[in-house]
Parts: sequence; structure tokens; C-alpha cells
Amino acid sequence: MTTGTRVLVLNAGSSSVKYQLIDMLDGSRLASGLVERIGEAEGRLLHLPLTGEPRESVRRFADHDGALRAVADELAADLMGLDSPELAAIGHRVVHGGLRFTRPTLINDAVVAEIRRLIPVAPLHNPANITGIEVARAMRPDLPQVAVFDTAFHATLPEHAARYAIDRKTADEHRVRRYGFHGTSHQYVSRATARLLGRDPAELNVIVLHLGNGASASAVAGGVCVETSMGLTPLEGLVMGTRSGDVDPGLVFHLHRVGGLSVDQIDDLLNRRSGLLGLCGDNDMREVVRRAQDGDEDAKLAFDSYVHRIRRYLGGYYAVLGRVDAVAFTAGVGENSAEVRAAVCANLEELGISVDPELNAVRSRHARVISPSYGRVTVAVVPTNEELEIAQQTFALVHEV
Amino acid sequence: MTTGTRVLVLNAGSSSVKYQLIDMLDGSRLASGLVERIGEAEGRLLHLPLTGEPRESVRRFADHDGALRAVADELAADLMGLDSPELAAIGHRVVHGGLRFTRPTLINDAVVAEIRRLIPVAPLHNPANITGIEVARAMRPDLPQVAVFDTAFHATLPEHAARYAIDRKTADEHRVRRYGFHGTSHQYVSRATARLLGRDPAELNVIVLHLGNGASASAVAGGVCVETSMGLTPLEGLVMGTRSGDVDPGLVFHLHRVGGLSVDQIDDLLNRRSGLLGLCGDNDMREVVRRAQDGDEDAKLAFDSYVHRIRRYLGGYYAVLGRVDAVAFTAGVGENSAEVRAAVCANLEELGISVDPELNAVRSRHARVISPSYGRVTVAVVPTNEELEIAQQTFALVHEV
Ligand SMILES: Nc1ncnc2c1ncn2[C@@H]1O[C@H](COP(=O)(O)OP(=O)(O)O)[C@@H](O)[C@H]1O
Ligand SMILES: Nc1ncnc2c1ncn2[C@@H]1O[C@H](COP(=O)(O)OP(=O)(O)O)[C@@H](O)[C@H]1O
Repeated sequence: MTTGTRVLVLNAGSSSVKYQLIDMLDGSRLASGLVERIGEAEGRLLHLPLTGEPRESVRRFADHDGALRAVADELAADLMGLDSPELAAIGHRVVHGGLRFTRPTLINDAVVAEIRRLIPVAPLHNPANITGIEVARAMRPDLPQVAVFDTAFHATLPEHAARYAIDRKTADEHRVRRYGFHGTSHQYVSRATARLLGRDPAELNVIVLHLGNGASASAVAGGVCVETSMGLTPLEGLVMGTRSGDVDPGLVFHLHRVGGLSVDQIDDLLNRRSGLLGLCGDNDMREVVRRAQDGDEDAKLAFDSYVHRIRRYLGGYYAVLGRVDAVAFTAGVGENSAEVRAAVCANLEELGISVDPELNAVRSRHARVISPSYGRVTVAVVPTNEELEIAQQTFALVHEV
Repeated sequence: MTTGTRVLVLNAGSSSVKYQLIDMLDGSRLASGLVERIGEAEGRLLHLPLTGEPRESVRRFADHDGALRAVADELAADLMGLDSPELAAIGHRVVHGGLRFTRPTLINDAVVAEIRRLIPVAPLHNPANITGIEVARAMRPDLPQVAVFDTAFHATLPEHAARYAIDRKTADEHRVRRYGFHGTSHQYVSRATARLLGRDPAELNVIVLHLGNGASASAVAGGVCVETSMGLTPLEGLVMGTRSGDVDPGLVFHLHRVGGLSVDQIDDLLNRRSGLLGLCGDNDMREVVRRAQDGDEDAKLAFDSYVHRIRRYLGGYYAVLGRVDAVAFTAGVGENSAEVRAAVCANLEELGISVDPELNAVRSRHARVISPSYGRVTVAVVPTNEELEIAQQTFALVHEV
């Protein structure tokens, strides 16, 4: 069927599109970029070609169709346009696959209709993902296009981890369960950790700490995800940049009754004005660390709360797994903040976890071990690459079909 | 001042009053009982004297005043009435002490007014507690009466554990924080565990698992509580008889928007129709275990979910404490269910936790070790006695004043 060796990965948000063109022969990035503020008076396209300077274009992008055409133009200018025979497929990141999609899926009309049916459980994400798919299909109706779901890797959670302890009828009626997110990253990083250790993923138990703007933890037993911190929505779990993560559900009732806040206001509070931002006014961990080191009490509280929550999950997943071979830090904070890594792993010798200060201080873009050689558990920094994982899953599916 | 050596402990709920008369010379129970269905057409008083048969009286108790007078009559019939000179004080269980009350407190008008001011954060509990206090004070205005708060033991939580990661201004304005509950039990059991081990509480790190109808875990470092699973309200944390414990806060938004449930309906769902009951239709662990052993899938899911949540907290608090000397099981399920204890501690050898099947199977009303002698962590069953703890704190305060 297809003879191309390149995959275009698209990640369409409500007002943005991120893209990467990947060479499947070696997994390298041929081009990447993003369009942001789609629909606003002044949008922006930033294109990063393999060689040469980044190209920026500030203008109005009326809709996702206009944005994707502009992306296609940039790629064409690099002689890698959407019509190039080297393009084997387009891989779409789709946030919510529900219970229906637990594997990468070749897109057709029925699949789009199914993704649409999931909008009630993913109102913020799936509509934009669908728009991206529709525009891309209109441009290249003949090309295989694949949906890779953020929830898929977590489909293996056992029922006792996936079900909330609420009335089952209500749960089933409204499709309430722990779906988990960031799955592509947890999958990629857990495998990359096995590779780093020269071990078979099937024999390795790994705790992955994905600490970006959004943040989540997962417990992966022999390559299979058995627990994860995000739930029905990406709000649950760790403290994030602007999201609260776990709170007493009674807090919602309290703010509604005593505080007079509407459900929408509380949603906005917990999703957009909480987390590090809510605790100290900054949601960028670099700034939080800098202020904390300068003695700022609010920033110190934010840092300590962030770390404390991660430690609770780390220990919790340790108990869930019974035996832990590796802990992997990934995403913006996990890959770059030696301070967070050191604080998360401090005083955990009883769990066999510790970090070598010198190894932890090394800055690198490569996967690396940061625990001392005597550690029972290997602690590692493993850069994530969701786009590569999406491209690989897309390419594999296209060749399997 | 007082020469009495007995303390009456009162626990007033919205439609019930529980009581115990305790001899402070040896901590023994002289009498106990409860009045239930206060205000209903047919209430019930059950009085358990030290010797002789239980006395039951089924009739209408119009209000707490009537109920408490009936209790006084029962005690008087045993020659231990409220006017007896041996009565040194009355100790009242009060659920919510907020940030204001972190120690047992001698009750006066100002204290009652302060407890009243906390009603917005404890709407279900504090009003009934206040009624109990007022009726008891009216009956014995001259007698020292002491409030012992369910939240007090958790007042030592560090800010990074007590604060939710939400906007600080909103949190402060509406007094949102982790208060924790069952504090009297966690305090009593952590000390009793030290006693069982012949160790000083100040040098012992203990994880207490209070598993009753309500359930909560706490991490106690050197006698000081540093983390606990219930939060702003008693809804957060472990799976309970009818309460969900932790859920994605997004679940509330989802059920409101997609399910069309009101905030009150969701509150009712999570507090009264969730937990073991929601998952399998039974909230009594005996019944859940029996059904699960008979192969009932729903009961098995409920049991597994219950245990899984406890394991996550156990491991999480292990990481919070860094070093754990003992794990103590207490309350109805913790003291009686060998099945739950075995499942919670299974496959945790890497944490130094295990249970000896024979020791675990022993039935006893006394504190006992159930881990094998080689275990790094001592696992124990430690019966709780909140009434005795309240009596002791009450008696100590009265003698200190
Ligand atoms: N050197 C650094 N030290 C600490 N935090 C960093 C550093 N570099 C990036 N970050 C954090 O990483 C976050 C972004 O992570 P990323 O994984 O890119 O997020 P996203 O979830 O949007 O993919 C930033 O908000 C910033 O707080
Ligand atoms: N033998 C037993 N096996 C398992 N569970 C038990 C047993 N005995 C009592 N329980 C459980 O203990 C629960 C009550 O615990 P208790 O501590 O008395 O509750 P409360 O929170 O009301 O004080 C009951 O609902 C029951 O499920």
C-alpha cells in the first residue's frame, strides 16, 4: 500500500494546532511548529524547519482549516508538503477514547462519529481533535489517518483501580470511571526506561512521573499500566501548574453552599486558578523555585505542596506494585528541575530510592540514570516524546493493515 | 477543686446521643448506652449498666433535652446520677474545632459561641454537638464541661499537607483546608501502639488505619500527626461504608452538567449511596466478605476497591514518613476483619510489611501484634477507645485548671 516513510503528527487544541513531521527510518524530526490563537484577530504560526532559521508569521487564522492550510504551505516550502509521496500517514492525537478506543485506530467516518459520541466526557478536548481530523481528511482524503488516544494506555487498569467507589448504576449511566490521560507519554517513557536499563519492559515495574504543565503519575507493571493519577478528567491527582489535582469532593459542595460559587465558577477555580498558580501566583516551576530559593514563603509552600503530593503518589504506587525497579521523571519539570527530583526522592532510603546529587545536577537531553549504583530502585530522567510515539503507533498500524 | 473520679462522655448526633460513664481510677466503663431516633414518634434508649441486664426503653424522646434527662434517670437508677459527687466532669465530643480549637477546651459561653461560628464548615455535626453541650450545661451548670475536638489531633499537619492547592484567597475566605477527623481515635491508637511496643511515642512513626463505618488513615511521626486522609469534610480519603472517599473533583462537574444532578443530589450520592454500598449494595464489611467468598463479583470489586485505596494510602504515608515503625489497624473493620488486614498487607515485603496468618486469625479484644518477628515494620491490631481518650483529656484538663 503506502511506500512513504514519513508521518505527520497533528495535535489540534481548541485554538491551536501543533505538528511534527517525523522520518520513520530513524525517528528524527524533519520539521515542527505550531499555530496559536486560531480565530483571534492576531494569530501566530511558528515553523521550525530541520535546517535554517525558524519562520514566524503573525496574522489572522480564521479557523482550523486556514491554520492547517498555512502549515501545509510551510511544509511545501520545505519540499515536504502534504501531497509529497513520502508522507505515509497522518497521526492525530485524540484526548479521549473512552472505553471504546484502547488502541490506535484507522480513521473513517464511523470512527469520527464514535469520537464525537465521547464529547460529553471530554468536552474541552475532543471537539478540537475532531476538527483537526476533519480538516486533515478533507485535505488528504486518500491518505491513511490514525487516531492515537491519550487514554488508551490506561485501558488495562484493573476494575478496582478504574472504578470510583460510587453507585454503579449512576457511574455506568454517565460513563464515570478513571480513564487517565498522558497515556502516550507514560507508554513511551516506561518503554524508554526499560531500554535505558537494558531490560525487557515485560519484566520491569516502573513508576512514571510526568510533570509538565499538566502532571500525572502512573504505575506500570511489566509494560502494563495498572494505576494512574488523572481520572475521569485531567483534573485529578498531582498538583499542576494551574490545576488543583486532588481535593475533598466536599470542597465543591462547601464553596457552592457557603461561598455561593456556581459549579462553573468552581470548575474554573480548580482548573485554571489553582495548583502552583493558586498557591503562589506563578505556574512556571522555574519561577517557583527561584522565588523559594530567595526565601519567598508562598513559593516555598507551593513547591512543598507540589513535592508532597508527588511523594504520596510515589509511595502509593510503590505499594500498588509491590516491587519497583525504576522511577522515571519526565516532561518539562521532570526533565529539567533537579530541585524537584531531589526533593521528591529525599529521605526515601527505606524504599530503596535515592538520588546522586552530581548525577542529578547533570543537564542533558538524553535519558539518564540519576540514582547511585547501590540504589535498589533505579531513578532516571527520561525525556518524553509523545509525537514520536504517536508517529510510531500510526506507522505501525498503517503497515499492519 | 473537684474531687470526683468519674467522667461522663457525651457524643450528641443530630438524632442520637451516645454516652459512657468512665471511672478514671482505672479507665473502666461504669455504664454506657445510647438514645436514638430523637424527635421521631418512636425513639429508643438502650442502657448498658456495669452489671445486670441491658435496659431498653422504646418511646418518644421529643428532643435532646428529653433524651439527656432519660439518660440521667438511667444513671441515677444505678446510683451514678448526674448529681453524684463522684462525677468530676462531662466531656463532649465535638466534631469540628476549626483552626481555633486544637486542644481540649473548658466550655463557657464564649467557647459555645465559637463552636457555633464553625457551623458553616461542619453543618452536619456541630449543631448537634452544641445542642448536647447546652442541654448538659443546663442540667449541671456548676460542673466543669470540656469539649474534645475530632479535628484537634490533626492541627499539627504542616501547611503543605493541610492546604489544598487552590487559590489562597478563596481558601482563606471560606476557611478551606484539610482539618481531618477521627482525631481522638488516631491519637489514642498511635499512643496505644507505642505502649504495645514498649516504646516512647516520641520516637515512633506509626500509620494508623481507622476502618469503621467512616474510615481514615493518618501518619503520626513521633506522636505528632503529619498527614491524614479526611479533609475539609469527612468525605475525602478511603472508601467507606457509604462514602466514596476520593473522586476526581471533575466528577462533580460531570454529573452536574451531563447527568443533570443538582449539587445536593451529588452530595447525597457521594456521602450516602457510595462506598461499599454503591459498589455492591452492602455497606457492612462482614456481608461484603461473605458474598465475595461466595464468588459474588460485585462484592469482590467492592472489597478489592476498598483494599486498593488503603494500600495507596499506606504506601503514600510510608513515603511521607520516610521510616515506618508500625502500622495499626483499628475500628470495626480494622479490629475484626482478618481478611481486610491480610489483603492490605499482602505483597508488601519490599516495604518491610507483612502479616503472620496465624497471628492475624486470632480473635481478641486486646491490642496485639500480627506481623512475624522478622518484619521491619510491626503490624498491629489496636482497639480504639475514643470515649476513654475523651474522658482522659477531660479529666486531665479539669485537674490542670
Ligand atoms: N529548567 C526548568 N526548571 C523547572 N521547570 C521547568 C524548567 N523548564 C521547563 N520547566 C517547566 O515545564 C513546564 C512545561 O512542561 P511541558 O512538559 O512542556 O508542558 P506541557 O504539559 O504543556 O507539555 C513549564 O511550565 C515549566 O514550569
Ligand atoms: N467481624 C467483622 N468483620 C468485618 N467487619 C466487621 C466485623 N465486625 C464489625 N465490622 C465492621 O465494622 C463496621 C463498624 O465499625 P465501627 O468502628 O463500629 O463504626 P463507626 O465508624 O460507626 O464507629 C461495620 O459496618 C462492619 O462493617
